[in-house]
Amino acid sequence: MSDFSIGVDLGGTNLRIAAVSRDGQLLEKVTLGTKVALGPKHVIAEMCDAIQRLSEKYAPAGKLLGAGIGLPGLVDIQTGVMRKAANLPGFENYPAGAEIERRLGTRVVVENDAKVAALGEQWLGAARGVANVAVLTLGTGIGGAIILDGKIFHGMNGMAGEFGHVTVEPEGIPCGCGNRGCAERYASASAIARMVREAIATGDAPALAKAASSDPEFGAKSIYNLAIQGDEPARRIFRTFGRYLGMTLAGLVNVLNLEMYVLGGGVASAWDAYAPAMFEELRTRSLVYAVTVPADPSAQTDSQGRRQTVITRALLGSDAGLYGAARSAVLAS
Amino acid sequence: MSDFSIGVDLGGTNLRIAAVSRDGQLLEKVTLGTKVALGPKHVIAEMCDAIQRLSEKYAPAGKLLGAGIGLPGLVDIQTGVMRKAANLPGFENYPAGAEIERRLGTRVVVENDAKVAALGEQWLGAARGVANVAVLTLGTGIGGAIILDGKIFHGMNGMAGEFGHVTVEPEGIPCGCGNRGCAERYASASAIARMVREAIATGDAPALAKAASSDPEFGAKSIYNLAIQGDEPARRIFRTFGRYLGMTLAGLVNVLNLEMYVLGGGVASAWDAYAPAMFEELRTRSLVYAVTVPADPSAQTDSQGRRQTVITRALLGSDAGLYGAARSAVLAS
Repeated sequence: MSDFSIGVDLGGTNLRIAAVSRDGQLLEKVTLGTKVALGPKHVIAEMCDAIQRLSEKYAPAGKLLGAGIGLPGLVDIQTGVMRKAANLPGFENYPAGAEIERRLGTRVVVENDAKVAALGEQWLGAARGVANVAVLTLGTGIGGAIILDGKIFHGMNGMAGEFGHVTVEPEGIPCGCGNRGCAERYASASAIARMVREAIATGDAPALAKAASSDPEFGAKSIYNLAIQGDEPARRIFRTFGRYLGMTLAGLVNVLNLEMYVLGGGVASAWDAYAPAMFEELRTRSLVYAVTVPADPSAQTDSQGRRQTVITRALLGSDAGLYGAARSAVLAS
Repeated sequence: MSDFSIGVDLGGTNLRIAAVSRDGQLLEKVTLGTKVALGPKHVIAEMCDAIQRLSEKYAPAGKLLGAGIGLPGLVDIQTGVMRKAANLPGFENYPAGAEIERRLGTRVVVENDAKVAALGEQWLGAARGVANVAVLTLGTGIGGAIILDGKIFHGMNGMAGEFGHVTVEPEGIPCGCGNRGCAERYASASAIARMVREAIATGDAPALAKAASSDPEFGAKSIYNLAIQGDEPARRIFRTFGRYLGMTLAGLVNVLNLEMYVLGGGVASAWDAYAPAMFEELRTRSLVYAVTVPADPSAQTDSQGRRQTVITRALLGSDAGLYGAARSAVLAS
């Protein structure tokens, strides 16, 4: 017997559905293209068909504990309505949760995708065995989530964890949210892209300029490679990124004093290029970090067994959301 | 029958001990001077005598549920040792908790005084009936606490809630913690005092200069009075204070999405002088606040009954710590 739940990760490009056993084994994963052009009703119908096929296939082996759906946008977890859906045209104000429940004839858990990805990392990834953790997903913006006692901390309206819009430069770059100097204007993949454009425009970043015009896949990875090879403009960009990421983390460590902070998203893997600047900010800007910093940054306790603040990278990549969505269904069951 | 607990507030000047009924009625309060010069052993002995007298007096009327002690400094809640005690010479690294327990022959709860004051405000003060709340006590620094589900959220090492050392100006004023631009360098009573000194030094603040030299009790209250009377330098100081306080709150609202944020400490009562600037920062710098802001700032729900982010002042003054200490004993019992 292997009781299981269904996790769904609905993205702008891919729709992925997985059956995951209660103890975290992936039973099966289905990847479909998200046919956004055909409208939300069609996408939800395809999703529900896949959920039902997987449920029926594994029903003989164990009990279905529920289904959890990660949605890309601002999700009202009470009503299952997507408030904002930048990458899913037509889904804004669409009652995704109710439509899924109507088709499946059962309750489902609907969550923001960054929040379920954080839950996945806490359950089976970088924070496995760590009850209290914050996850920052560095992408176009900064997705964030706080996990307390192994559960997503939602706050009053499900909006806790908006780390990306914490001010790090009072008179800084304007942000789409109406503020200036938001963390995600300085410590996200799009911030790197902006800094690259600015560096090229000065005329003092020849290697970046060359790569940008000749490399068809020019992006964070190529800039990282230049930085590692010692290109000073590329190094400077990651130092600035690391500095503001460290400032953001320092604030979180002072406020939350959690065991672990996990950095996810593609650009997080440029660790070697930004981590030194990030840790320097953490040490000087967080007295809570300074008294709880491990001598060995990968250790969770010091030589006397005291618990330490750990900053580390996510481990599950894009599967974190699938696992977390499956987990959220189990937690709600 | 009225079951009760004992709350203690040990300050640098006063040692206060109260018997409080389980439902929050003050049965009796004793105020003693804190004889710091006689050493911690003497202070603890006086405290324990008073606890015992109160316990015996109210024992016939109800069961003693425990004792909670608020200590001014960094408290290791597991061991009861005070790590830092700026206002209590001789108490640094003193095992206050163990010494109290030895004398009383029973377990006690030992806590940081700002944290128990927050619990008091949540139990009986501004946040009565609100389960999730953050409290900022604006004094020499900024004391902070997060209450979740009616209990103090300690974080990993009891250090959660260090709001005063969150960076609000990356290249700002140096702070004793080793950072620059900490919130408490801009939004505390000592920040007001610094801004007054700076304003007077420019020679452009005649009313402040006159008050400072002629008023023997010159302080935040006199500066507030000047601001309310329209003195522009005094108004500007409170605007700056409000701006940075709003920035600090905006970060907390984005990260925590709590129902309520309570401002305590003497300078918090200058509300009229700083609140407009504070709310303006909150509206522009917190997208979570902007979507959860009440039309009526004192309301907790909007016209459709949706829950709103409330920013308000503490109600219990210096008694908050006594009530909170008593409450912490009940929660631990």
